[in-house]
Amino acid sequence: MTDAAFQDSYDENVAHCYGCGRLNEHGLQLKSYWDGDETVAVFEPRPWHTATPGYVYGGLIASLIDCHGTGSAAAAAYRQAGREMGSEPRLRYVTAGLHVDYLRPTPMGVLLEVRGRISEIKGRKVIVDMIVSAEGEACARGQVIAVQMPDSMKRAGE
Amino acid sequence: MTDAAFQDSYDENVAHCYGCGRLNEHGLQLKSYWDGDETVAVFEPRPWHTATPGYVYGGLIASLIDCHGTGSAAAAAYRQAGREMGSEPRLRYVTAGLHVDYLRPTPMGVLLEVRGRISEIKGRKVIVDMIVSAEGEACARGQVIAVQMPDSMKRAGE
Repeated sequence: MTDAAFQDSYDENVAHCYGCGRLNEHGLQLKSYWDGDETVAVFEPRPWHTATPGYVYGGLIASLIDCHGTGSAAAAAYRQAGREMGSEPRLRYVTAGLHVDYLRPTPMGVLLEVRGRISEIKGRKVIVDMIVSAEGEACARGQVIAVQMPDSMKRAGE
Repeated sequence: MTDAAFQDSYDENVAHCYGCGRLNEHGLQLKSYWDGDETVAVFEPRPWHTATPGYVYGGLIASLIDCHGTGSAAAAAYRQAGREMGSEPRLRYVTAGLHVDYLRPTPMGVLLEVRGRISEIKGRKVIVDMIVSAEGEACARGQVIAVQMPDSMKRAGE
């Protein structure tokens, strides 16, 4: 895997995301990396991220897919351009469409792996397909349609 | 609107959901109600539920859609059976499929309304279509395919 997380390259102004912003102290702070042509993130749900006792909350799984998807989209756009992640002009993505199929109840108490594959990259849009697995067994399948972040969202914190 | 929230009728053993469980003190505790033939929930994001500063995190919006969807599914199944919500045997649903289209950045600092419509109810499956709006303007469109909770998930906490 690469050394630096995609999310650690985000500009300070757009690093407050609840799911993956390094500057959001209440958030999940998801970290995503390249692993060859795939992207990977690992997350351990907190004890309160339950659906029913013993199983992980589906909204948390959707959140992991959301943030791993937009992070993977940015990383793929930089890689396609042959540029180092975080270099100017910045490439940062938001989710236009999110889809999750829950394949089986996801167990609590173990690390979850989110593994992504870039299915399409064209213009301002990137499609990322993902699998969330627990101990090697797929629990959810996700897709994010990511688009470049509109300038209005970047300016909000200025 | 009806007086009692759908989620307040959930059995104690399945009331720990991070998104809507009344017994999850760290969670969002979403509450959903009937409003005629539609279902409605209102939620005010916490200050840390940001995407970028000023806008609501997409994973939170997905979570609201998830829990309002499964709650609406249960309410619709009880209503179809002509039974009071919470009566035995319990009808409780989980999400098999979740889809969210983000229509525009969702502003922070205002109440969000999630409004649901039962699109299909057949056998163990209910499909709920939803709109999330802020100050009357639609920000996201969501769909949940809900299925009756497997017994394995109900037993987890016993």
